[in-house]
Amino acid sequence: RLLLLLSAAGLAALGAPQPPNILLLLMDDMGWGDLGVYGEPSRETPNLDRMAAEGMLFPNFYSANPLCSPSRAALLTGRLPIRNGFYTTNAHARNAYTPQEIVGGIPDSERLLPELLKEAGYATKIVGKWHLGHRPQFHPLKHGFDEWFGSPNCHFGPYDNKAKPNLPVYRDWDMVGRFYEEFPINVKTGESNLTQIYLEEALDFIRRQQAAQRPFFLYWAVDATHAPVYASRPFLGSSQRGRYGDAVREIDDSVGKMLSLLRTLSIAESTFVFFTSDNGAALISAPSQGGSNGPFLCGKQTTFEGGMREPAIAWWPKHIPAGQVSHQLGSIMDLFTTSLVLAGLKPPSDRVIDGLDLLPTMLQGQLTDRPIFYYRGNTLMAVTLGQHKAHFWTWTNSWEEFRQGIDFCPGQNVSGVTTHTQEEHTKLPLLFHLGRDPGEKFPLSFASTEYQGTLSRITLVVQQHQDTLVPGQPQLNVCNQAVMNWAPPGCEKLGKCLPPPESVLEKCYWPH
Amino acid sequence: RLLLLLSAAGLAALGAPQPPNILLLLMDDMGWGDLGVYGEPSRETPNLDRMAAEGMLFPNFYSANPLCSPSRAALLTGRLPIRNGFYTTNAHARNAYTPQEIVGGIPDSERLLPELLKEAGYATKIVGKWHLGHRPQFHPLKHGFDEWFGSPNCHFGPYDNKAKPNLPVYRDWDMVGRFYEEFPINVKTGESNLTQIYLEEALDFIRRQQAAQRPFFLYWAVDATHAPVYASRPFLGSSQRGRYGDAVREIDDSVGKMLSLLRTLSIAESTFVFFTSDNGAALISAPSQGGSNGPFLCGKQTTFEGGMREPAIAWWPKHIPAGQVSHQLGSIMDLFTTSLVLAGLKPPSDRVIDGLDLLPTMLQGQLTDRPIFYYRGNTLMAVTLGQHKAHFWTWTNSWEEFRQGIDFCPGQNVSGVTTHTQEEHTKLPLLFHLGRDPGEKFPLSFASTEYQGTLSRITLVVQQHQDTLVPGQPQLNVCNQAVMNWAPPGCEKLGKCLPPPESVLEKCYWPH
Ligand SMILES: [Ca+2]
Ligand SMILES: [Ca+2]
Repeated sequence: RLLLLLSAAGLAALGAPQPPNILLLLMDDMGWGDLGVYGEPSRETPNLDRMAAEGMLFPNFYSANPLCSPSRAALLTGRLPIRNGFYTTNAHARNAYTPQEIVGGIPDSERLLPELLKEAGYATKIVGKWHLGHRPQFHPLKHGFDEWFGSPNCHFGPYDNKAKPNLPVYRDWDMVGRFYEEFPINVKTGESNLTQIYLEEALDFIRRQQAAQRPFFLYWAVDATHAPVYASRPFLGSSQRGRYGDAVREIDDSVGKMLSLLRTLSIAESTFVFFTSDNGAALISAPSQGGSNGPFLCGKQTTFEGGMREPAIAWWPKHIPAGQVSHQLGSIMDLFTTSLVLAGLKPPSDRVIDGLDLLPTMLQGQLTDRPIFYYRGNTLMAVTLGQHKAHFWTWTNSWEEFRQGIDFCPGQNVSGVTTHTQEEHTKLPLLFHLGRDPGEKFPLSFASTEYQGTLSRITLVVQQHQDTLVPGQPQLNVCNQAVMNWAPPGCEKLGKCLPPPESVLEKCYWPH
Repeated sequence: RLLLLLSAAGLAALGAPQPPNILLLLMDDMGWGDLGVYGEPSRETPNLDRMAAEGMLFPNFYSANPLCSPSRAALLTGRLPIRNGFYTTNAHARNAYTPQEIVGGIPDSERLLPELLKEAGYATKIVGKWHLGHRPQFHPLKHGFDEWFGSPNCHFGPYDNKAKPNLPVYRDWDMVGRFYEEFPINVKTGESNLTQIYLEEALDFIRRQQAAQRPFFLYWAVDATHAPVYASRPFLGSSQRGRYGDAVREIDDSVGKMLSLLRTLSIAESTFVFFTSDNGAALISAPSQGGSNGPFLCGKQTTFEGGMREPAIAWWPKHIPAGQVSHQLGSIMDLFTTSLVLAGLKPPSDRVIDGLDLLPTMLQGQLTDRPIFYYRGNTLMAVTLGQHKAHFWTWTNSWEEFRQGIDFCPGQNVSGVTTHTQEEHTKLPLLFHLGRDPGEKFPLSFASTEYQGTLSRITLVVQQHQDTLVPGQPQLNVCNQAVMNWAPPGCEKLGKCLPPPESVLEKCYWPH
């Protein structure tokens, strides 16, 4: 009720100005070092670089997990995956996401950003990858989105529609085709029109809401930079960086077109735009299908900086001063809280919210002390506080996997740090100073006063975090071949329903 | 005579406009990744970042050697060290510079940039480190500089004035004191006023030449970012990056003050300014005394990108368009040729000049194909052509040295690439695509058509280079304790002459 009073509808009734539109641009596996403004040597992102020059750049911005699903669940709930259930306990320190076999998804008990914004009068749309569960109860339109164009999972493939179905592409409630069928991705050439389709969906939605004079929340979650990376024909071969760079260029071009539309419609000053990525570049796919984490250690799947430090740009002309850089430790979860405040709402008070309101940072340059937690599964691997990072566990992947050529840190073997056994340091964490040593290559000496002082400060923060932590029910433990996307709603009309196999519950298995 | 006709004096006589002033800002051991505009996460170089925003940034700019002296000799002669003699043949692929024991220096037969500019009517000054030999015949005022404030060698130390003298600081012809004595550097705290002194020298010179309406060439070769790094008190502790960052901040501040003075004096539009560094960041001194090479492999002493790829910014308001990025493969030797052209001169035609005129690049955005050669001693280690780099030899340092903890590539062990034995690949070079793989971590497959095509192109260029190469007399082979800075000119007045030991010629020894 209080929420309603503060909502867009409420404000409009009072003759108050409409709250700003919110446009979240979430990249998939894009790394900190992939943008020109972050130092990518080929400098092929003129539109994003310009967005940064017109807005605020965050060099110290983090995802909530080194993997897609938990990071996205954290963004939309403002809560760590350990709280919202997006983790597995099937093994120690185990990364997990939502494959087609997953039984779980986003719990009904979680309150999602689109749900809250919708109540406040916003028109809401997700374009692209959902990744919060694909069974009917997890459908994005059941969790606050008015519209959806995209897919519930990653565009892995191609599949043969027998052992596994190809992934469905949805428009709103119904499947309208499948990847590699109606929505082709040529894995050999890398050609696909998907980013162009996602761009059109975004532009169309923006135009419609502007015409209707309705505040909008658009969550643009494209996946062209996730392997297998793809780009449309005009962008294929256009990059000095290979196919991955082609995908980046197409996304950069799309962002430019969106910001340009906002200007053309004269709603740039009433639209808050934020650009970031769900996890670090996947160095296992480098160089042709993986991005760059700049000077940071390792990549996706790890809790080193390369796994979770992200490019991040805020843009809101006439509100956020141009050309700023903020060293605020930011989190993807802050986008939840910040968006609510922008909408005139307050974050839910009946649960722990990890996201901060970044408006004082963005509008007044304020800096707030806060920790960044790095989890794998339900294991707290590391924490950053100020300039210092403590590793309680180090672990990349197993020797067995590593010897098969799966390397999360290619060319970056830091002895005793990028370990292939799970090394516990909870009693005597490895500490790094990220200002002097952003690459996590030089652990502080245990005997130094800097180590001692830092450890006491960090220990306090971690104890407080762990003492009050109530883990959510883990959603990513149970798998079942029968729950895959065999026959999504709408499949009958298309004649694309597939018979599911027998239902067999099993523990999900994650290699790392 | 032709030179004179085209010179400043000649042009002035004809009533032609005065040629532009030339200000070269040469850093010492600063890395590609040390500037905010190149992605340094702490973003502490607002003045250099602004300089880039107002000018042209070169992400693909190279020094001529991974070490100080040869790189500086190449800058001032426009010629590779293998041509101008700044190398040693005492061992295979051996790096060398000019320590106090060096007998050699810049040969009289070389024509230096200040010498040519002086003939054309420029007032010329070097501030800071010379490093082209310290015996009387190598004095910068014998090679074209009108003025000098600085030191002939590196500020290594402290010495006890017995086994070795402390390094002299010169004003013009005479020593005016020594490092660690009259010009203190507190190695414990890192405090020194030297950058402030160097700044004042620059500002004063600029003011005087502007008052005299004389075109000037100022070579500002500061060394605060060379270990032991130093900063003055207001900058000590000001950086998030530790003492190295303090030094960078002070230099950034100084550059800001120089550009600001140019604006105040209304000569910004008639002053060409170029900022770069002599070699990559010294990762052996990291993290507290060494900088960052961003995403590039290894650092100083090596012929990987981290050793020779440099930050580079050109600034010339109203001439070089603002906010440009050029992917021209640039070389520090281009500053020789470009400066001559700016002065209305032609480069000497009686010798091979390796530097290109970058004006068509900077003024019209032209791109010119050219190779970049990476030498250690007289060994061609690698070459870059377009986006491809071929390694003919790989080598960091010896196992023996490495086991003692001297590591040019800390945390960056790329198997078969960062080798600790000198590995020959002249028949089948290791090839990398620097656009897709700037970190030189993924050699191309020998079987690929990309490898085959690239190899033929590169082989041709290398053959042409080697077939026509006439190596200069090596200057860095012979050492002698007696030639050290025991009694530089001016020492009598100061009472600071030291007795030299017996003269014994010996082969210089370089560990790597
Ligand atoms: Ca992802
Ligand atoms: Ca140097």
